[in-house]
Amino acid sequence: MDKIIRINMTDLTSKVEAVPAAWAGLGGRGLTSTIVAAEVPPTCHALGPYNKLVFAPGLLTGTPAANSGRLSAGAKSPLTGTIKESNAGGTAAQMLARMGIKALIIEGNPAGDAWYHVHLTTAGVTITEETELVGKGNFAVIDALEARLGKKTGVLTIGPAGEMKMTAANISVKDPDSKIRSHGRGGLGAVMGSKRIKCITIDDAGAPKVEIADPEKFKTAARAFAKALLDHPVSGEGLPTYGTNVLVNILNEAGGLPTKNFTIGQFEGHEKICGETMHDTIAKRGGKTKHGCHAGCIIQCSQVYNDKEGKYLTSGFEYETIWGLGADCCIDNLDDIATADNLMDDIGIDSIETAVMFGVAMEAGILQWGDSTEMLRLLREEIAKGTPLGRILGGGTGSVGKAYGVTRVPVVKNQGIPAYDPRSVKGIGITYATSTMGADHTAGYTIATNILNVGGYVDPLKKDGQVELSRNLQIATAAVDSTGMCIFIAFPALDIPECLPALIDMINARFGINLTGDDVTNLGKHILKVERQFNLDAGFTNKDDRLPEFFNTEPVAPHNVVWDFTGEEIDEFWNF
Amino acid sequence: MDKIIRINMTDLTSKVEAVPAAWAGLGGRGLTSTIVAAEVPPTCHALGPYNKLVFAPGLLTGTPAANSGRLSAGAKSPLTGTIKESNAGGTAAQMLARMGIKALIIEGNPAGDAWYHVHLTTAGVTITEETELVGKGNFAVIDALEARLGKKTGVLTIGPAGEMKMTAANISVKDPDSKIRSHGRGGLGAVMGSKRIKCITIDDAGAPKVEIADPEKFKTAARAFAKALLDHPVSGEGLPTYGTNVLVNILNEAGGLPTKNFTIGQFEGHEKICGETMHDTIAKRGGKTKHGCHAGCIIQCSQVYNDKEGKYLTSGFEYETIWGLGADCCIDNLDDIATADNLMDDIGIDSIETAVMFGVAMEAGILQWGDSTEMLRLLREEIAKGTPLGRILGGGTGSVGKAYGVTRVPVVKNQGIPAYDPRSVKGIGITYATSTMGADHTAGYTIATNILNVGGYVDPLKKDGQVELSRNLQIATAAVDSTGMCIFIAFPALDIPECLPALIDMINARFGINLTGDDVTNLGKHILKVERQFNLDAGFTNKDDRLPEFFNTEPVAPHNVVWDFTGEEIDEFWNF
Repeated sequence: MDKIIRINMTDLTSKVEAVPAAWAGLGGRGLTSTIVAAEVPPTCHALGPYNKLVFAPGLLTGTPAANSGRLSAGAKSPLTGTIKESNAGGTAAQMLARMGIKALIIEGNPAGDAWYHVHLTTAGVTITEETELVGKGNFAVIDALEARLGKKTGVLTIGPAGEMKMTAANISVKDPDSKIRSHGRGGLGAVMGSKRIKCITIDDAGAPKVEIADPEKFKTAARAFAKALLDHPVSGEGLPTYGTNVLVNILNEAGGLPTKNFTIGQFEGHEKICGETMHDTIAKRGGKTKHGCHAGCIIQCSQVYNDKEGKYLTSGFEYETIWGLGADCCIDNLDDIATADNLMDDIGIDSIETAVMFGVAMEAGILQWGDSTEMLRLLREEIAKGTPLGRILGGGTGSVGKAYGVTRVPVVKNQGIPAYDPRSVKGIGITYATSTMGADHTAGYTIATNILNVGGYVDPLKKDGQVELSRNLQIATAAVDSTGMCIFIAFPALDIPECLPALIDMINARFGINLTGDDVTNLGKHILKVERQFNLDAGFTNKDDRLPEFFNTEPVAPHNVVWDFTGEEIDEFWNF
Repeated sequence: MDKIIRINMTDLTSKVEAVPAAWAGLGGRGLTSTIVAAEVPPTCHALGPYNKLVFAPGLLTGTPAANSGRLSAGAKSPLTGTIKESNAGGTAAQMLARMGIKALIIEGNPAGDAWYHVHLTTAGVTITEETELVGKGNFAVIDALEARLGKKTGVLTIGPAGEMKMTAANISVKDPDSKIRSHGRGGLGAVMGSKRIKCITIDDAGAPKVEIADPEKFKTAARAFAKALLDHPVSGEGLPTYGTNVLVNILNEAGGLPTKNFTIGQFEGHEKICGETMHDTIAKRGGKTKHGCHAGCIIQCSQVYNDKEGKYLTSGFEYETIWGLGADCCIDNLDDIATADNLMDDIGIDSIETAVMFGVAMEAGILQWGDSTEMLRLLREEIAKGTPLGRILGGGTGSVGKAYGVTRVPVVKNQGIPAYDPRSVKGIGITYATSTMGADHTAGYTIATNILNVGGYVDPLKKDGQVELSRNLQIATAAVDSTGMCIFIAFPALDIPECLPALIDMINARFGINLTGDDVTNLGKHILKVERQFNLDAGFTNKDDRLPEFFNTEPVAPHNVVWDFTGEEIDEFWNF
């Protein structure tokens, strides 16, 4: 029987609850957003006792469905003030699913300065004071917890950034190699820190398998689904070979690779940091060019990146991080970027927010353009230690902009704008503007259709069709984020006719139900509207669905285009 | 002939414009808010080229009317994101009025790193590059400009805080003793800094007197008005004797003196910092217990506070500053508070925002409660020098709260809540919540009626009548802020029947018109609605008209009361 686990950190108690009927058909983002919207006062202080931190595996998580092992985390974001869902790979989602935990709701803030360790087993929840791990980086935490509780233990943890409630802090999830995946965006690590939980461990010993109502139907659908993933050139070839970093050269070519804090659309040093170079470097140094963030991933877009001595440097080394510290900060040294990636994992800070932040910090004169030595020092000596400068930097892009009076600050709803220039890839600008969670490329990844010719083609430089494109993708993404599926299944889903029906068939076979494609679309619409209503109730308006002023006034080379959508045109997004 | 001076800092030009008919009946806040609302895009970056900084003397400024010499400054606030008007004494307002300058509008931001000095004479405007004064404190700037241009020169200047675009930066105005008065709140100094104007000087040589249409009628009204000011116990006795600091003991007695970052309503050390102690100290050390912030002030609530050696320490030493660094920071040493006041004048940073900020900084552990030595060091060594910690502190109360993850952060619309606890003086809470400019006691000073029994009495601990009280006072204040009058004329205006008619008669006699009391009320309503509309267009909603969560949940001693207004009750404010 599926259940809800509710942990109250004010009095350090927990209880098991039945799943309300209204939540039964939900998982992942659909469930975290529904719970946050139902139980968190939209105007509450995100770090106060009225915010709640919710974890939920997806509808298909724990089944043999390919790429279904992602975990959603939700709360009111201390970075944006909006509702937030952030999903990540790792081992925790599948363990929770096997244990029948549909959602873990953490509420209340304890009095006092103690830190806590929450441990979940099939027997229940224990909450104990944690002293040994306080102040430790995430890698040390995972090592120590494995030594304490066994190698198989699932781990969710915050680093120093989360302990210090920095608004760029993330929540780290142990991956199958005891390395780190992240609930990156929106500062959810600060919410976990405000509840004074250093780590959550999971022991699923004795948990049953996830039940499947119609195993035969499931198997057939799962096979068709996996085939689609492997057949598509992006998910079957581009991503496994070069990782997400395949995009550096593609975006550079398209003139949409934001460079030097979004002042140019192409980076001179792109060849030194691109996916092709990364692939060859990894191969030469004996790393892994393919790697999955969770068991059952068949795309394998991750990798293990070693240093010159062949020693592990980082994994889960993503395009957006490489773009941000690379092109946007004018750093063309991939090893330094990899070192920074590893540090950010250890500190527990969102690598996208932090990379965009460094671009603004360079504009503010805190460090020089391209100075990766100083960038690494700032991570190690300032952010990790919580010095005043570290606090400013750890607050993310908007924080640095405010503290130093910078006007070129690429944020929407105070969240840093990622790796695609909205002036030269206009669809993604609509996503940044309208996403319920601040600037977020994953909310509606129009790059697929604007740049990669997936799901058709919409000219990235023209306004026509962009609002509709972003809307359709955001609706679909909200639904996909509820299944526990990786967002990259969208590529085959958009191009291969068998893919989406197979996904729906798997859900139907899992639960013994009969969802149609329309049901899935309606679920996506419903989730977006629930999230939007939370934001409206928190005081957001259409005036927040805008890009920063400089995109309207500063043309970006090489196309020399500006962001030219009117407010009314953007607001059309919500007409559904 | 009255005129508008428009300065364009993008191309360093200026022009003289006729006063549009629609602006002819406006002055002070009514004019700055009208111009900002008409010409500044509400969603623009407050430090970007689309914001404008507007100065306007009041309708009666430059006439012999008592207490009419205040200058309004307006812009979009970088601290709150709302429209902002801040008024101050000093000599500039009367000089501008005599020169027929109804408003000075500064628009555009220059390219490059140069700083500028704007000089106004009857012959026109000169804009020259300024090098000597860059980085200098306000007292040195005033000294240097007097040496350069003569003792009589009017000066508006920003200190290091404004140069660094700190959002708590103010604009300083030279007073009749070459000391400093401030356009304190809302970070207007950062706007002036973003336009790279270090100082504005005024030479009114050759300017005619302000014309008065009916001199006899004016003289009669002015006499009646002055008599009312002198007859009222608050403006005629309390303020001249003890300054605004008369309020420390009164608010402490009422249990509404926020102490230790708004955790208690009374301060043990109140006797050491109160107006009575201050008066005796000043008298003993040969300072001045009475002092006017501008020529023609007959209330004389200011003072000159000397140190133990009888040397000048500070002037314009206000209750809110003394409360904030005193009770709210648990500092009971008036000399240290006076030293800080002088430093804040020199740095050019709002003393209210900074004082409230220090309370949060103490809660965050940046310094210890009551540690005035460290507080002075932080002002001198961190804020004035713009170190990273100084940047955090110079960003004001909300900035420190965000950087350190504090949840007890007394702000509305990111502006620090001043010296009156809204739980035990509920009327002022309505003003904080609904003011168009963030938490601001001067916007509708219900303390008059809640605590001082001026204009009747509304029990401060009950909800009844508070919304109406705040509404009536905010409407009246918006009108009074348009006349160039000091806000303290409200005390006699509320109690002495002859006062308000005399004020209206003076306006009528000055312009040869026939305003009624209703016209004045309607002007106040109109101003509030113009300001409110700007904020709505900037994306604010009624959700922003709320006090921070902790006021609802933490009872404050000695009355052990919480803030118990519902959102709906607060929103009633705007029903007019």
